[in-house]
Amino acid sequence: MELLLLSNSTSDDGYLVHALEAIRELADGRQDALFVPFAGVTRDWDDYTAQVRDALAPIGISVRGLHREADARAAIGSASLVIVGGGNTFRLLKCLREQQLLAPLAERLRAGGGPEGLRYVGWSAGSVITSPTIRTTNDMPIVDPGGLDSLGLMPFQFNCHYFNLVVPGFRGETRDQRLAEFTVLSPEMSVLGLPEGDWVRVSGTRWTLHGEHAARWFLGERTIDIAAGALEMPR
Amino acid sequence: MELLLLSNSTSDDGYLVHALEAIRELADGRQDALFVPFAGVTRDWDDYTAQVRDALAPIGISVRGLHREADARAAIGSASLVIVGGGNTFRLLKCLREQQLLAPLAERLRAGGGPEGLRYVGWSAGSVITSPTIRTTNDMPIVDPGGLDSLGLMPFQFNCHYFNLVVPGFRGETRDQRLAEFTVLSPEMSVLGLPEGDWVRVSGTRWTLHGEHAARWFLGERTIDIAAGALEMPR
Repeated sequence: MELLLLSNSTSDDGYLVHALEAIRELADGRQDALFVPFAGVTRDWDDYTAQVRDALAPIGISVRGLHREADARAAIGSASLVIVGGGNTFRLLKCLREQQLLAPLAERLRAGGGPEGLRYVGWSAGSVITSPTIRTTNDMPIVDPGGLDSLGLMPFQFNCHYFNLVVPGFRGETRDQRLAEFTVLSPEMSVLGLPEGDWVRVSGTRWTLHGEHAARWFLGERTIDIAAGALEMPR
Repeated sequence: MELLLLSNSTSDDGYLVHALEAIRELADGRQDALFVPFAGVTRDWDDYTAQVRDALAPIGISVRGLHREADARAAIGSASLVIVGGGNTFRLLKCLREQQLLAPLAERLRAGGGPEGLRYVGWSAGSVITSPTIRTTNDMPIVDPGGLDSLGLMPFQFNCHYFNLVVPGFRGETRDQRLAEFTVLSPEMSVLGLPEGDWVRVSGTRWTLHGEHAARWFLGERTIDIAAGALEMPR
C-alpha cells in the first residue's frame, strides 16, 4: 500500500500548500487523480473538486471528481491515484457504502501501489476512513452511515486535528477525555492523535510520521508522545 | 410529558447545584429517583450513581441506579422519576437499545406526568436522547449504537454545551459549521443550541427556556438567538 494520510488540508500558506511536496512524492509520476468529494456537505462537490484541482495544478496533477463519473465503481477500478477530501466523516462513509465502493477501493490499495497500482491521498475524514472504523472521528453524526466500519487499511485508529485544549467555561469533554472513553471500551485498539499540519506516509509495511508537532498514541490507559520519524504502534 | 432537560451537570457552585430548584419543582414531591448511568464510560456506574445521590440529597430525593436493578424494564415501568445522566451519547443509546428500554420509557413519558405518571430529568446526553435522533450530539462515536434514532419525545434536536468558539490554530469545524452541515442535509429539522447552564422545562405542550445565556435555533440557513422564556420552534 502507498498512502499519504494528512491531518488537515489548510495551512497558513494556502490550501494543501504544506503537503504539495509530499503529494508529488506519493504520486510518483501519476498525473491523473480521481477526487472523492463526498465528505463535503456545505460546499458544492464541483466547487470542492475545483479547489483541489487548483491546489494540485502547480505539481502537474489533474483532478476529476468521482461524483461526475457515470460508473463510480469502474472509475475506482481504473484510477491510479485517488484523493479523498475531508468534511464530514459520516457523510463520506455513507456515500462510499451506498455506492459499494469501500471493498473495491480497499482491495485495490491492498494489492499494492507499484507501477500499475493505485495510490491514495486523504486528509481529515479521508484519513480517518483508512482506520478499521470511524469511531475516533471528531465529526457530528449528521447522517447514519449504516455502520461505523470503514476501509480498515490501517491497524489503528486515526484522530485528526488532534489537540487537547481545555476551553474556559466549556463543561463538555476534552479531546483526551473523548479518546480515553474510546480506549476504555476498546483497550486493544491504538489511536494516533495526529496534530494539525502532520501526516503519515505509508509505504508497504513502513510508516513514517511527518510534521512539526508531536503526535500522541493512545492505548488502554497509556498515552505516548512521538516526534517525526519512523512510526510504530505501541504494544 | 413532564421533562427537565439540562445542557450540563456541573457548575461553579458544585455538581447539579445550579439545577437543584428546577429538579425539585419537576419532581413535584417524588422522593425516589431511578438513575440511568449508562452514558458514563470512564467512571464506574456505582460511583456515578453515588455522585448524583449526594447531589440530590439536599432536596430530599433518594437515588438508585438502574444498572443494579434485576429487571430494568420493570424498574422503568414502575418508576415515578427517571434521571438520565450525561457522558457519551452513543454509549447511552446503545445500552438503552440493547436492553429494549427506549420504547417503554418513551411510552410512559408520553402518557403524562400526572400524580401516577413518570417524570424525566436529563442532562447533556440525557437531554440529547429526547430528540428524534442523536445526530446533533457532540460526542465521539466510540461504540455503534445500532442506529441513531432515539426517544423522539421532542420534535426538534438538542445540541448541548452549545457555544461557537473559534480556536486559534484549529483547522477543524466550529460548532456552528457542524450544525450547518446537519441543517443542510435535514433542512426541515430544527436544532436548539443550548448553552452551558441553561435548560428547557417541558410541561405538556408548554416549553420554557431557563438560564442566563441566549440559546440559538438552527433551521435551514437561519439561526435565531432567543432569551429565557416561552420557547417556540421557528417556522
